[in-house]
Parts: sequence; C-alpha cells; structure tokens
Amino acid sequence: MRWLAAPPAPPKLVKRKYREQTTELRKQLLLAQADLRERRVPVITLVAGVDGAGKGECVELLNAWLDPRWIRTRAFDRPTDEETERPHFWRYWRALPPRGDMALYLSAWYSLPLLQRVDGLGRQDFADRLERIRRFERMLSDDGYVVSKIWLHLERDAQVDRFERLQSDPLRSWRVTQRDWDNCARYPQFVAAAEELIEASHTDESPWTVIDGSDVQHRNLALGNAVLSALRRAPEPAPRVEPTTRRAPRESQPPDDGSPPEAGLSKREYQRELAGLQGALNQLHRSARARGVPLVAVFEGRDASGKGGAIRRVVPAFDPRCVDVVRTGPPNDEESEHHYLWRFWRRLPRAGHVTLFDRSWYGRVLVERVERLADEDSWLRAYDEINEFEHQLTEHGVVLVKFWMDVSPNEQARRFAERQRVAHKRWKFTPDDLRNRSLWDEYDAALADVLSCTDTPAAPWTVVPADDKRRARLNVLRAISERLETHLSSAPKTNGAPR
Amino acid sequence: MRWLAAPPAPPKLVKRKYREQTTELRKQLLLAQADLRERRVPVITLVAGVDGAGKGECVELLNAWLDPRWIRTRAFDRPTDEETERPHFWRYWRALPPRGDMALYLSAWYSLPLLQRVDGLGRQDFADRLERIRRFERMLSDDGYVVSKIWLHLERDAQVDRFERLQSDPLRSWRVTQRDWDNCARYPQFVAAAEELIEASHTDESPWTVIDGSDVQHRNLALGNAVLSALRRAPEPAPRVEPTTRRAPRESQPPDDGSPPEAGLSKREYQRELAGLQGALNQLHRSARARGVPLVAVFEGRDASGKGGAIRRVVPAFDPRCVDVVRTGPPNDEESEHHYLWRFWRRLPRAGHVTLFDRSWYGRVLVERVERLADEDSWLRAYDEINEFEHQLTEHGVVLVKFWMDVSPNEQARRFAERQRVAHKRWKFTPDDLRNRSLWDEYDAALADVLSCTDTPAAPWTVVPADDKRRARLNVLRAISERLETHLSSAPKTNGAPR
Repeated sequence: MRWLAAPPAPPKLVKRKYREQTTELRKQLLLAQADLRERRVPVITLVAGVDGAGKGECVELLNAWLDPRWIRTRAFDRPTDEETERPHFWRYWRALPPRGDMALYLSAWYSLPLLQRVDGLGRQDFADRLERIRRFERMLSDDGYVVSKIWLHLERDAQVDRFERLQSDPLRSWRVTQRDWDNCARYPQFVAAAEELIEASHTDESPWTVIDGSDVQHRNLALGNAVLSALRRAPEPAPRVEPTTRRAPRESQPPDDGSPPEAGLSKREYQRELAGLQGALNQLHRSARARGVPLVAVFEGRDASGKGGAIRRVVPAFDPRCVDVVRTGPPNDEESEHHYLWRFWRRLPRAGHVTLFDRSWYGRVLVERVERLADEDSWLRAYDEINEFEHQLTEHGVVLVKFWMDVSPNEQARRFAERQRVAHKRWKFTPDDLRNRSLWDEYDAALADVLSCTDTPAAPWTVVPADDKRRARLNVLRAISERLETHLSSAPKTNGAPR
Repeated sequence: MRWLAAPPAPPKLVKRKYREQTTELRKQLLLAQADLRERRVPVITLVAGVDGAGKGECVELLNAWLDPRWIRTRAFDRPTDEETERPHFWRYWRALPPRGDMALYLSAWYSLPLLQRVDGLGRQDFADRLERIRRFERMLSDDGYVVSKIWLHLERDAQVDRFERLQSDPLRSWRVTQRDWDNCARYPQFVAAAEELIEASHTDESPWTVIDGSDVQHRNLALGNAVLSALRRAPEPAPRVEPTTRRAPRESQPPDDGSPPEAGLSKREYQRELAGLQGALNQLHRSARARGVPLVAVFEGRDASGKGGAIRRVVPAFDPRCVDVVRTGPPNDEESEHHYLWRFWRRLPRAGHVTLFDRSWYGRVLVERVERLADEDSWLRAYDEINEFEHQLTEHGVVLVKFWMDVSPNEQARRFAERQRVAHKRWKFTPDDLRNRSLWDEYDAALADVLSCTDTPAAPWTVVPADDKRRARLNVLRAISERLETHLSSAPKTNGAPR
C-alpha cells in the first residue's frame, strides 16, 4: 500500500479561506490554459479512481474552472460497432485532442484492464496491458502531449457512507447502481489491483496524482493544483510543431470569469438562480438522455456579447461526458476542401448528447457576408441551405435552440476597454475587435436578414438582451430548458439507443 | 414510359472496334480526371438501377478505367449505430469527397425511397423525399460538385435471363439472392417507381443517364461516355474555393496506363496471369469478408517505382465497395494538429474491408528523415512507434502486407524520360523527381534501417523488384493472396460482424 494509504484527516478549511484559494487557483488555471492554447500544446487528463470518490464531480469542476470551450470530455463506455471493428485503441486515437486543446477522459484505457485484473486476469497479462498503455502514453508525450492522470481514492468506509447518502436522496439515488454495490463488496481486490496499476504506470512523462476524495474542499483544491502543475509541466517551446504557413487564427473570444458586479441582480441572487436553473436543466437533460434526444444550441452574437460566458454557464448543467463545445473559426484546410456545412454535420451529437456551437453555420450569412469572404450568390442561397439543414435536424428529433446575444455598442465598448485592463482577460482583445465595431451597421443588416429568413417554427431564434451578463445567462438557461421541456412533453421520438 | 423504354437492339461491336474505342475513352477519362484533380473539382457519380443490370461491374469498370487512388467507392447498406443516431443524411455528408476527388456511390440516397415507393409509400410522400434529395444535390452542385447519376436498365426478360445464368455458375451463384427473385417478381412496380423517380430528380445540375445493360460492350462504352461528359461538365474555374495560402501539394505520382511492352513476359501472358491472380485474390477476399477480416496493404518505393500501377492492379481484385485507397502526401493542417500516426488510425478499414496506403506512416522514417522534415529524435523513436502500431493491427486480426517497390536508378531515369514524352503522363513529372534522385543514397540508408527495424514476423516486408512492371504487379498480387490465405487457414479470429 504505497499509493493508496489512508491519509491523515486534513484540517477542515474555513469557507473564506477555501474561496480565496479557489479564486486564485482558477485564475492561474485559466492563465495556464490560455498559455498552452497559444503555444498549441495538447493536454490529456485522465480521471480514474474508486467509485463514489467523485470522478464525475471532478470532471464537472474542471469544466467549470477552466474554459470548457477548449475542453473535450469523453467517457469511454460501451464501444460502438464502428469501434468494435477496429483495434482496441482506435477509439482513443480518434478522440485525440488537436494541439492546443485539452481532453478530459473518464473510464479511459485503464478501466478495462483494471476490471479484468479484479476478475482474475493473470499478473503477466495485466503487466502486458499496462506496458502497452505505457508505450501509448510515452508516444503521446514524446509528441508534445501533456498527459496526466488523477486517481481519486476513497477509503472503504467512506465509500459505503457515500453510497448510502446518495441512495437516501431521491434526486440522486439513481447514481448508485447494483454494480456499484457489487464492486464495493470487492473493495480490497480493487484497491490491490489499483495499487499495482498505479505503480506500473506512474512515469515521469505521465505521472499519477492520487487525491483523497473524502473531503470535497480538499479534493477540489488538490485536483486544481494537480491539473495546474500538469499544465505548467508543458515543455517550452512545444516540440514537433509541423511547419504551417497558414494558421487558422483562433477565434479571439473566451473565458469570462469573475464577472464584474452588474446592475439589477445581486451577485447572490444571481448565483442562486443560476444554480437553480442549471439543476432544472440537468434534470430535463437526464430524461432527454434516457430517451435518446439530442440537443444542439447555437450561440451567435457580436464580439464581447457574452457567448462564451453563456456557454460556460450552460455546460455545467449537463453531464460533461455528453456535451461537446464546438468553436467555429475560419475553416481549416480539410474543412475548406468540403462544402461549408460539412464541418457542422461532422460534429452533430449522437442520441442523448449535446453540442454547443460557439458561432456556427450562420457565419456564412454573417461574418462571411459582411467581410465579403463569400460571394453574394453563395450567401444568398445559404438561407435555404441552412433552413434545410436545420429541418433535417429537427425532423430527426434534435432539439435545436439558437441564440443571438444582443449587446449594445456602448456596452461592447466598455467590455473592450475592460479586457485591456484585466490581466487574465487581456489576450482576448485584438485589433480585429475594433475593426468589427466599424462594421456594426453591416452586421445589423445581416442579422435582420438572418432573423427574417431563418426563424422557423421548428428552429426559432431567441434574441437575448446581453448588456446585463447575469440576466443574459439566466435567460439562455431558461430558454434551453423550455425548449427541451416542450419537446419532451410532446410525443417522444427516440432515434437510436441512448448511451 | 419515357425513360425506361426498351431500346432497339444495337448492332454487335466487333472486338477490335470495341478495343479501339475503349482505349481512346480510357485515355480521355484519365485526362479529364487529372484535370479536375488539378482544378480541385469534386465529383460524385451515383450508380443505380435494375438488379442484375451490372451496377457492381460498372463500378469495378470505372475503378479500372480511372485512377482508383482518387476514387472512393461506397455502398450504403445497413447504417452503423453511429449513423442511426444522427439525421438520415449524416452518412452521406460524412462520406462526401474532398475537392479534387471522385466518389462512386452504390445504393445511395435513392435506394430507400424507391424501395419504399414499391412497398406502397404514397405519391406525395415519395415526392417529398425526392424534393429533399433534389435540394441536397443542388446544394452540392451550387458548391462546385459535379453530380451525375447513372441508371442501369434491363428489360425483364433480360433480367430473368441474367439471374438464371448467374445461378447456374457455381462461382457466381451467390450473387443471386432470394431478395433478387422477390424483387424480380415485382419488376413492373419497380420500373414504374423508377420512372417516377428519374422524372422527378432529373435536373440540369445533376442529370440521370439511362444505360441499357443488356449488352456488356455497349453498356461499358455508354457508361464511360456518360462519366466523361459529366467530368467535362465541370464549371471552369472551380467556384467557391476558399482562399488558402498553404495548399497540401498533391503527390506527384499517378495513373499508369497502357504500360509499354516490357522484356520477359508477353503482354498476353501477363494479362492472363493478371486476371487469374485477381480472380484468386477476389475469392480469398470473399471469405475474408465473410469472416470480418480486414486487410491493410502498404506501398512504399521511390518515385516512378510503380506503386500506383500496382495499386491499380490490386484494386479490381476486391469488391470496390470494400476498398479504400489512401494517398499519403504532406499532412493537411488538421492532420498536423495531431500525432503523425493519427491520420493513419483514422483510415483503418472496418471488418472485412481493405485499405491500400499509397505511401504511409513510413514517410516518417523515409521522406521526413531524408528531407529533414522531422528531427532525429522524432524519426529515431518512430521505429518503435510503428512496430507498436502494426502490432496492434495484427493483434486485432488485420492482415498487414507491406511492399517496397524496388526500382533501379537506370529504370527510374528511363521512366522519368518517358513521362516527359507521353501526353497523358506528362503531368506526372515534376522537378521534385530530379531532386529526389540526387538523394538516392540517403534513401538507401533510410530504407536499410526500415527493413532492419520494422520487418517483424506479424508484419514482414515484401521487397518487389520493380524494374519489370508486369512481374512486379503479379508479384504484389501473389504476395497479398499468400498472406491472406495463410491468415485464413490459421485459426479464424473475427472482430465485429462482417458487413
């Protein structure tokens, strides 16, 4: 028991202390994430551990603390038939994040060997599996990926305790399954196998961090610090960056944290309402998932209109394993080799999943029109093409919500000025922002056409007054919930099995 | 009966005449294909029609006449579970060819509506489906895709005749299924629905060409001419090409037709042996397919070593619906955002399918090493990475064959000179070819390392003397058959259901 020894109970943190520490941690995390994005370093963080230790909560927390738009969270459950037909690691290869992105993986490549070991897989076979994994991870880190692994530990008593508490809560009892109890009965075998696993796969390039899950505050801080040090471990400069003349410029628009106090809603009221709405949406999505209903939300709006901030408040409402945020910038060269809708088709959610588009196919009739990147014929016919596309989505049973985040010129100017002041927001402000402002009226005309041509009964637009960030975010959450609820209360149509 | 009227029996062609016409047609087709590739125009050709009229043969013929390395042939049978969970057209969107490529589709978007119409789908619903297809096709052609559609017709008597002949041939009787006979019984309904379908979906942008399948020679010529005129229909210049500074240069290495007479084997002997070997491989692949065994063949070799020519002779041995040719050039920007093996993982065949890699992951330790595109650390560790990758393939049950096409300096020089002479080969010769020759010795050293480090029992190299093109091609076919046969005669391991 070298790795998973019971830790001494840490002293309870006072609330203020915890808040101070997390605030600082979040700031550092955002800065580190932005830095790696800038340097195009890809990051992979695995979250594994004992059931009930809060793996899911940890993933949610990281999505909340970091900017989820550059995070892909994946749980690797039952492989699809396309995956089954390929070598085992195919599913991990296809999910690999591109340089500059971060992947959070649950039940990844360690999960199966561990279960098999508990079920009696021999020592040598187990070692062989781990050796394969070790080579895979080394290959990634050799290529400049930052790979880190979190093991969430929980003593047996604490685990039983956690399960019992969950089970007695009617809202959360679904989280404890018979399999959990079965595994719980085999706790000693699990922990022994996990010891072996960690020992064999803890390497310099991809180390394990063991975190005790019994105290939520300490767990969260330890988690944040582990990820932060992983992010800071990135080699400088990023190795093996292929020479590319053309770089798709990253969209200049991102995390939005610690919003300044705003008129209207007090911070406290806001936070209470926010949590309530996220909880409600979470409940709704749970039934949507069970029925296999996919959800697509589109966020459009001018720079600094708060698209990113809204998305960050929506993401926590969903199980992070089911949600995918797609940032739409200029097309990369594979994308421009295809029809402009191709890249959006590619990212459609499967049954029960959610895709949030931070800018979208409306780029064709907004930025490409205004900036004259598309000729008139192309953007004129795009209205029909878009309606057809959206019709196919809704006909298939996708719930489609489209937001225009409506910011006023004065508020936009104020936000631009603020970005230049705040350190961890400074990178958000680019000369493009000023140029775009001068195109304000042209965008207005383009927007008017979008609203009049693509506001259909099945895929209506929701215009969200966005000068008040807090209200805007609450309204976005409300709108999604309403659309989902309406859909679920009408005749259910399930496409494909929920996963 | 406007479209599918019985045609007057055409006069039988004399063999010489047919050969002359096809030779000219093939030359024109290759030139037109090269031209579109150059201009980055994507082409989609649907092949539909009456059962027994030879849809499969037509697709095979086009793969033989055109350069199959720029063709993707797809049959859309039962959707996978990932496809079922998305809107119906998702599977077509994900298969869309990039600009400059050609897609041949069997059982594509017309297949289901037609069957449903025969099964009693109402006139209005049928019209709605067709309207959706019409919009889809228009959207593609608006974007510069050349869409053409072939309907292979056969009179009922001819169909019955064809089925009976097939059924009495033990080698081909498997081609006739009970479903074929059931459909045959409903011939009049099928033809009526097809009339309706063609009438409604014949547009200027994506016209139907109806070809009578009763006479094979006339059918082939009509098919070749239909595709040729479709290729020539491409707008000039290609519209909606996104501005890209960096263009992944197309690999300078392609179709190889009407090989010059060569010492050793007479043309006649060669052709007889070729057909025999292709037939044998075809038989083997049929069992491989039934057992869900995937096949990967890698073709490496210097410029003008005959990789392309060999691939073109291998492709016809497989059902074109199961074979995918991957040309490996410089990575596009999405690819260079990932580990260098990522793009090869992406293209692995599913159960029972075949991928032929025209150059491959060995680029890392060949061209990238010699041209100093990868630093020494990177290519040095690539040997292990490649062995690990290939081990995962073979362990999963993939049959992996690797060819080094070994051409001598003199023969390469002769071929370069020839390329400059022959019109439809001229575009193959680029200044790079001369540069590469000067690196001959460095390639030699790189090759020696490849052979000594990556020649493993499960994934051995086959070095093919390539100065004699004909023998080289026959040897390639033989080697693939042998590997497949050895694999099939050992304990069968099926991964996933065959499709």
